[in-house]
Amino acid sequence: MASKAEKTRARLPRGFVDRTAADLQAADRMMAIIRDVYDLYGFEPVETPLFEYTDALGKFLPDEDRPNAGVFSLQDDDEQWLSLRYDLTAPLARYVAENFESLPRPYRSYRAGWVFRNEKPGPGRFRQFMQFDADTVGAQSVSADAEICMMAADTLEKLGIAREDFAIRVNNRKVLDGVMEHIGLGAEEHAGRRLTVLRAIDKLDKFGAEGVALLLGKGRLDESGDFTRGAGLNKKAIELVLAFTAAGAGSGEETLKNLRDVVGSSQRGLEGVAELEEMQALFTAAGYQDRVRIDPSVVRGLEYYTGPVFEAVLLFDVVNEDGQKVIFGSVGGGGRYDGLVSRFRSQPVPATGFSIGVSRLMTALKNLGKLDTDEQQGPVVVLVMDRTGEALARYQRMVADLRAAGIRAEFYVGDSGMKAQMKYADRRRAPCVIIQGSLEREAGTVEIKDLVEGARLSQTIEDNETWRKGRPAQVTVAEDKMVAEVRQILAAHSQGQDS
Amino acid sequence: MASKAEKTRARLPRGFVDRTAADLQAADRMMAIIRDVYDLYGFEPVETPLFEYTDALGKFLPDEDRPNAGVFSLQDDDEQWLSLRYDLTAPLARYVAENFESLPRPYRSYRAGWVFRNEKPGPGRFRQFMQFDADTVGAQSVSADAEICMMAADTLEKLGIAREDFAIRVNNRKVLDGVMEHIGLGAEEHAGRRLTVLRAIDKLDKFGAEGVALLLGKGRLDESGDFTRGAGLNKKAIELVLAFTAAGAGSGEETLKNLRDVVGSSQRGLEGVAELEEMQALFTAAGYQDRVRIDPSVVRGLEYYTGPVFEAVLLFDVVNEDGQKVIFGSVGGGGRYDGLVSRFRSQPVPATGFSIGVSRLMTALKNLGKLDTDEQQGPVVVLVMDRTGEALARYQRMVADLRAAGIRAEFYVGDSGMKAQMKYADRRRAPCVIIQGSLEREAGTVEIKDLVEGARLSQTIEDNETWRKGRPAQVTVAEDKMVAEVRQILAAHSQGQDS
Repeated sequence: MASKAEKTRARLPRGFVDRTAADLQAADRMMAIIRDVYDLYGFEPVETPLFEYTDALGKFLPDEDRPNAGVFSLQDDDEQWLSLRYDLTAPLARYVAENFESLPRPYRSYRAGWVFRNEKPGPGRFRQFMQFDADTVGAQSVSADAEICMMAADTLEKLGIAREDFAIRVNNRKVLDGVMEHIGLGAEEHAGRRLTVLRAIDKLDKFGAEGVALLLGKGRLDESGDFTRGAGLNKKAIELVLAFTAAGAGSGEETLKNLRDVVGSSQRGLEGVAELEEMQALFTAAGYQDRVRIDPSVVRGLEYYTGPVFEAVLLFDVVNEDGQKVIFGSVGGGGRYDGLVSRFRSQPVPATGFSIGVSRLMTALKNLGKLDTDEQQGPVVVLVMDRTGEALARYQRMVADLRAAGIRAEFYVGDSGMKAQMKYADRRRAPCVIIQGSLEREAGTVEIKDLVEGARLSQTIEDNETWRKGRPAQVTVAEDKMVAEVRQILAAHSQGQDS
Repeated sequence: MASKAEKTRARLPRGFVDRTAADLQAADRMMAIIRDVYDLYGFEPVETPLFEYTDALGKFLPDEDRPNAGVFSLQDDDEQWLSLRYDLTAPLARYVAENFESLPRPYRSYRAGWVFRNEKPGPGRFRQFMQFDADTVGAQSVSADAEICMMAADTLEKLGIAREDFAIRVNNRKVLDGVMEHIGLGAEEHAGRRLTVLRAIDKLDKFGAEGVALLLGKGRLDESGDFTRGAGLNKKAIELVLAFTAAGAGSGEETLKNLRDVVGSSQRGLEGVAELEEMQALFTAAGYQDRVRIDPSVVRGLEYYTGPVFEAVLLFDVVNEDGQKVIFGSVGGGGRYDGLVSRFRSQPVPATGFSIGVSRLMTALKNLGKLDTDEQQGPVVVLVMDRTGEALARYQRMVADLRAAGIRAEFYVGDSGMKAQMKYADRRRAPCVIIQGSLEREAGTVEIKDLVEGARLSQTIEDNETWRKGRPAQVTVAEDKMVAEVRQILAAHSQGQDS
């Protein structure tokens, strides 16, 4: 064996996490609820591998303003580059394009899976995280987008989030394009400045209208002294963009009217407003108008969106890193990406989808007390008092009997004595332990210690001697009554929890 | 848009697969059963990320005889090498070592997850596949190994595999070491030849005793003319090794006696036999002696095993690539790996575990007809006859009503006409479709077409005209009776399936 100095250091790679039982079980419960909603809407599961050919993934990450941003890539032995997927949309586009003839059209599917970002890890920023996506491919009509928005609202509600605590916000990239045209940034050559304008709008929650105005104009100096260069718009253009972001302050009807004003005569802009109007009518008809709202401040970072974009926002307050009260914010988003499947095919293939950030949504639900992340009760532990063949065989039979009755059980397989075994049972949150020493074995009995009731009583009985003599929460029964007795103890515990 | 010639080709990377709904749902059902058994045994879930530092993973792959074998690795921006895990055991060892103080001891856990092998893909050999592992860390006693063997047997049984169709085969690396000592290959310098002997034993199922004898001696020429060099043992040593592999032909008692003979005076060998004896006693006491059997031909490829090794084997016949009838073979295996956690720590940390090959087990269950991989029934499809705002709102309300009643439903969000919509409903395996044209809308009714009953009737009615006039499997009801009527149709379908 290597000396201590030569030992490998056990360490989790930077930006990755281990997940333990309570967290995994909570995640499973949450994802089962999401899956049920998506099933109910007629979507079906599909899964693609974690690797894709790099060229098939494309480069659509909003990574320009982050250092070391990007994907994990490596070259295969046949010289082709492989990448770990950075989202679930690009792989779905590949999948649909490759299986186009055999899939139903429209093709409605969902999938949860790991995605990877090769970025500098930071607080709450991981390099492996899970997304849960639903997409409709092959539907041009915005009723497909509207349906996905309502499905997102249903999902949040099914997860226990109150209606006043969330909103699905909807905008349309075509309206944004229209605004750009109106302020003279419509042409191809202005792509860079358009991006700067989008980024500025995206900062509205963070910096307010004043800050955004600076980012739209000459630039903004932040508290740390860093200067961010602005988009260089003139005063009138800045006012128009701000009017655009503020266009959603009133009712849905007013919003649509305001938007028609800011896109001016832009054909594309008017098309976007008409699409929003159509979606608004569907939301109203289905009674979702309070949960799904048109909001011109929604931008979404990804480049590939071509029409409606949407965002699921949680509205309850949390305290941010700087100690300020802010709304919790986005837990998911999506939109229409009519160009992604067409990258592979000669005909246009319209598509729209929605992606949930699983760990962010879990954080939100924990904040709201809607996700039970307590450790579950552990197994019944049969203590090992003797290690002879006969004794072990008896312990083995006890756990077999308990398991046959559907009760989680194990016998202690470590090497330690009674005291360590009791500590182990506590650590595992065992509801009770079974004890059989040589005397009990001869008598054909077992002693059962109720750890939950014992812990409760130890708070009421202060005198050590009374405790020992009274042997509270402890009972001796015949071996063949053990399962029935354990069942009673478990039933008493679950009644205790209910009351 | 790019011209056709410039399009990216949509293609799944070599050695990877997409998984569709029926397969995913079947896998979920299978894994839920495994999880239930492991929970019942007191194990709890834990999950590690897909990446580990390369040095933390170590190199334990049985890759020497495969070209291009190995792991997917890349260098991080801080120069450290990262690798995608190639199994779930090495990451667990890292996790336990890193969290040693806070974990209960023994620590019993399970996890299912993707693992990766950077090898040449072949038929049935994938570069991303799923394993489902259970491990007990911190237990030196072979009762921990015995328990895992019995848990594996319970798992296969819960999955519906008959007792005569599977066996858990158990051996012990110490016995193998004893045999090596007995034939004079005990010393460090013979490591290479020992490996050749192990590989030869591992080929017993494939080449029979004669073929193995060749591989233990000078070598073996196969049909294609390839020559595999042998271990160069003399006649007596070859006989001893073959006696060892044949030692399990009789009862458990006889096997142990035979093994004691072949390890001769080797202390390590006798220790291994004693451990097998202890495990055998536990199996017998628990009534598992027919399902869990000592079998000296079990070797297991991984280098890190130090004591008991075991293998879950399915015994029913399948036809292999060469058209020969062979037993299905291994669906999982494991053993004791006392050195793996100690790589990171100064004290010894004993550990044992079992790993299921998920897709191989699924293949087995499909073969046995124990895994339903039929496509599930699809959603009720509301056809879109008119695309006016009012009509769409009505369709939207219909699906909302159906979903509120817990019935999977969608309205057609594509752009095609009636005929394509009916084709879509068939393709989605819709139980029925809802039709409302302008006449029905005015009358406040819907037409419901039962597709399952319709398909059945179309086989009995041959005359086209009778068919059209009779409008079989079709009913018109008031809109507010739609949900009740659909519910009746679904109930009739599920009765039809039962009978």
